[in-house]
Amino acid sequence: MRDNAKTPERHAQRMAAKQKIMQERIERADKEQGVLLVLTGPGKGKSSSGFGMLARALGHGMRVGVVQFIKGRRETGEEAFFRRQPGVDYHVMGEGFTWDTQDRERDIQAAEAAWEVARGMLTDPQFDLVLLDELNIALRYEYLDLDRVLDDLQARPAMQHAVVTGRYAPRELIELADTVTEMKVVKHAFKEQGVKAQKGIEL
Amino acid sequence: MRDNAKTPERHAQRMAAKQKIMQERIERADKEQGVLLVLTGPGKGKSSSGFGMLARALGHGMRVGVVQFIKGRRETGEEAFFRRQPGVDYHVMGEGFTWDTQDRERDIQAAEAAWEVARGMLTDPQFDLVLLDELNIALRYEYLDLDRVLDDLQARPAMQHAVVTGRYAPRELIELADTVTEMKVVKHAFKEQGVKAQKGIEL
Repeated sequence: MRDNAKTPERHAQRMAAKQKIMQERIERADKEQGVLLVLTGPGKGKSSSGFGMLARALGHGMRVGVVQFIKGRRETGEEAFFRRQPGVDYHVMGEGFTWDTQDRERDIQAAEAAWEVARGMLTDPQFDLVLLDELNIALRYEYLDLDRVLDDLQARPAMQHAVVTGRYAPRELIELADTVTEMKVVKHAFKEQGVKAQKGIEL
Repeated sequence: MRDNAKTPERHAQRMAAKQKIMQERIERADKEQGVLLVLTGPGKGKSSSGFGMLARALGHGMRVGVVQFIKGRRETGEEAFFRRQPGVDYHVMGEGFTWDTQDRERDIQAAEAAWEVARGMLTDPQFDLVLLDELNIALRYEYLDLDRVLDDLQARPAMQHAVVTGRYAPRELIELADTVTEMKVVKHAFKEQGVKAQKGIEL
């Protein structure tokens, strides 16, 4: 059932559909379109960049949705902050969930339930931007079917922006995306220098 | 007067001071310390990452300051959003200012006035985090004296976090920083595909 195999047919179909969409975009490049952004790589700043885009979108009066596929459930600063903003729907995968569990079936259920929430946003044109924080980790663990995720992202409303964060973005997602940034570590205080991670700063 | 020359003595002094600070940090690595973060490189997400850290800090009940050294003054989504949050001091360099001006003296005055505001924050322990957005651009143009900027950053209160964004972070700033991320372009929708920059997403 869970089939992350890169079936060449499915991939070719998706790329053909994407090419068509891109062709249409180029033909009317003066028209605004929703973009798919991917923030990946080992450096700090992926999630915080996604949350900064959320703040910017809210500043433009947009309605936004967030689903956090986080490792180790804990109240985060972003969550405390954005839950109290108007115009934000905020969902965190499986309360009490942690990737540390040894129960793979439970993990998969939590990830799938979270994806159902994400899918609800990705099919609702009232959401101007959907942030899928750490989705790449759920894909990396193969807790979600990659083809299904890509199909849902591609099928979202034309004007809707989607932002996906997390290390190890799969190649197929990078191909589908409009803009991709890789965060590179130049220097890391906590790893290199033994400085304790900071409340308010740690990513 | 404006002397961005890398005087070896000043540099050696600063590095010695930094080494001492880092040694103390390592000795009491269980103690929290303010960190200096630099977000640089050509990829998208530098400023938005800084603003995401701002949101996270606000979620932890911290007080934050922002100075934007932006290119081309325009109301941004972040500005609209964060100006209405409690606990935020928000300053934008020179109202009506744009880097496009041909008047270098006017640019320098605007940058220096903005730095005075930043310096006020960097000497006030009530600020838990100070975001210096696009400061690297002002340094790149040599509109601010690099040594003065580095000295003020280094002299800030021990618990205060500082985040500096913008392309072309100078080497000396990278050396002084605790954590540095370089944003790499993997793909860029607007440049490669002629898609118009989006309200709510453009960085």
